[in-house]
Amino acid sequence: MPRVVKLAVIPGDGIGPEVIAEAERVLDAATAGTDVTFDKTRFALGAARYLETGDTLTDEDLAAITSHDAILLGAVGGIPGDVRLKDANIERGLLLKLRFELDHYVNLRPSKLYEGAPGPLASPGDVDFVVVREGTEGPYVGNGGAIRRGTPHEVANETSVNTAFGVERVVRYAFELAERRSKRLTLVHKTNVLVNAGSLWKRIVDTVAVEHPGVDVDYLHVDAATIFLVTNPGRFDVIVTDNLFGDILTDLAGAVTGGIGLAASGNINPDGVFPSMFEPVHGSAPDIAGQQKADPTAAILSIALMLDHLGLSAESARVAQAVEQDIAGRGTASRTTTQIGDDIVARVQA
Amino acid sequence: MPRVVKLAVIPGDGIGPEVIAEAERVLDAATAGTDVTFDKTRFALGAARYLETGDTLTDEDLAAITSHDAILLGAVGGIPGDVRLKDANIERGLLLKLRFELDHYVNLRPSKLYEGAPGPLASPGDVDFVVVREGTEGPYVGNGGAIRRGTPHEVANETSVNTAFGVERVVRYAFELAERRSKRLTLVHKTNVLVNAGSLWKRIVDTVAVEHPGVDVDYLHVDAATIFLVTNPGRFDVIVTDNLFGDILTDLAGAVTGGIGLAASGNINPDGVFPSMFEPVHGSAPDIAGQQKADPTAAILSIALMLDHLGLSAESARVAQAVEQDIAGRGTASRTTTQIGDDIVARVQA
Ligand SMILES: CC(C)[C@H](C(=O)O)[C@@H](O)C(=O)O
Ligand SMILES: CC(C)[C@H](C(=O)O)[C@@H](O)C(=O)O
Repeated sequence: MPRVVKLAVIPGDGIGPEVIAEAERVLDAATAGTDVTFDKTRFALGAARYLETGDTLTDEDLAAITSHDAILLGAVGGIPGDVRLKDANIERGLLLKLRFELDHYVNLRPSKLYEGAPGPLASPGDVDFVVVREGTEGPYVGNGGAIRRGTPHEVANETSVNTAFGVERVVRYAFELAERRSKRLTLVHKTNVLVNAGSLWKRIVDTVAVEHPGVDVDYLHVDAATIFLVTNPGRFDVIVTDNLFGDILTDLAGAVTGGIGLAASGNINPDGVFPSMFEPVHGSAPDIAGQQKADPTAAILSIALMLDHLGLSAESARVAQAVEQDIAGRGTASRTTTQIGDDIVARVQA
Repeated sequence: MPRVVKLAVIPGDGIGPEVIAEAERVLDAATAGTDVTFDKTRFALGAARYLETGDTLTDEDLAAITSHDAILLGAVGGIPGDVRLKDANIERGLLLKLRFELDHYVNLRPSKLYEGAPGPLASPGDVDFVVVREGTEGPYVGNGGAIRRGTPHEVANETSVNTAFGVERVVRYAFELAERRSKRLTLVHKTNVLVNAGSLWKRIVDTVAVEHPGVDVDYLHVDAATIFLVTNPGRFDVIVTDNLFGDILTDLAGAVTGGIGLAASGNINPDGVFPSMFEPVHGSAPDIAGQQKADPTAAILSIALMLDHLGLSAESARVAQAVEQDIAGRGTASRTTTQIGDDIVARVQA
């Protein structure tokens, strides 16, 4: 039965449009000749749009995006230090706004060390884990403020908000994922210092664990977790953690597994009430924008995550496999963004 | 002129007493035949004391410790999961309490990759930087709480408190340190998300930078900083950052530079109003306690930091050099805690 998926595409700033162009070609190749068609709408959002119109994300943009089945996002953010952007906060006003408004409470970030991928570790071993990062709470809620701003008596606060509702749903997702993987789950937090939030996370993990007797549960403080990510990343299967710790751990995990040029992510609303959003973990890298230097692999792997999320597992596997083969075949010769896209498209078509 | 330094020694739990024993021997060796004597008082504090008496740190303990010139601490914390400790929070009630009460606003954590030190990176390059971690503010203030605890409607908050006063003094310290080193300072924060605290840190760094035109100033988000710590740690000279980010970065930095068995730290009150406290970055590692398996090097390097802080720079250099030689001479043969102590003592005496 023919199926049409309405896809909102936000190429964004910097290298965003370049990597998204390749991701779209791979998506087309992977779905060519199948029953499924992607009906794409392009949204010009990001620093460029802000500079032109002063808008970051209007209510109309948000409503239009929400009416889609899925979202593909490149990267957003202008040139650091651009004075015209000094009052803009594209990250908060656009990227985080989408994650919060669309209730993307699972920020899914797989880390796999592909054969042939360059990595900084001397003997990484087999690395294949997924970070389930909470996406709608914690220190990301924007619950802060300052008094006496700009004076010697300024006090600036940031409040991390954590709810049983919010923690339980992401913890359940992580356990279910662990059941389908190697059945090991590590909670990462800082319970000895952030005693209130930490206690909530710990109690919920302990409670949900009872329903999953087959899953080995482990706890690490976030500082210790960074040590293991470089000394023994193979010990991890599923990591579940809060929004900020997840942000930190996944950049480090990306570096350990060949660089954030390869790291894909899904901002998932598992309930299906809102469209989920797929994006590379990397930023807009304005310094190399338009030079065909960016690696589109992270964006392409985000397509694989999206296809899987949409239930198109055969198509997802084709993309993932093509990427895996491409990485394994990488020599030292450097390729342009388009050449990498070409090579992966060819493998998808093969 | 003979000088007597009153030193409070808190061996603590787990491997704490073992590593402190070696650190004390090295201290004795480094000061033998000099004008300075260390008059030591031992404080039995930590999980063991809590289990015996129910006390973590009494007002009398605190007053007695405060009357000393410096503090040497091993490690505190009981066996994870010990039910008898479930209502204790030795970390908050003892370690953090000392840092806060004694206004240790500079948490100084050098990271140096010694020749011969084993590290996880394939090509680390020259690594020699110092993290200046704020020690009395941020998410560590204990300003959190929960409502409807234990119910599905629980909300648990943690508030990071940051003041111009607190940020400025640690930023000034970091700039002065950078002036004496390679004149590069990196602020690490998450200004795009924690906009209030981030803005305060950024503005203060920008302001103080004007007084230090010779120092190159750089900014990194904490997630990006973890990437550089594994891909190009040589880029760092002085990192200044908040309490929580500093906690995370220094464990990672320790791992990158040969493991936290080598990582020393100083909790400094630069004003000299309160005694500063020196401790290895590692924890109490109850699993290997009493087995002579712990590496006392981090505790011994903490002695070097302490001597330097006390103005005993020649003695400090002797200890640091002895450790450097010991690490360079390390083969694959394993040594007991005491043997490592013996070898370093011999080098100090040589
Ligand atoms: C751009 C920024 C707000 C974002 C985050 O902190 O979540 C990014 O670092 C990420 O990990 O997707
Ligand atoms: C034990 C813990 C409270 C402490 C911290 O988080 O500061 C430790 O990790 C450290 O880095 O000294």
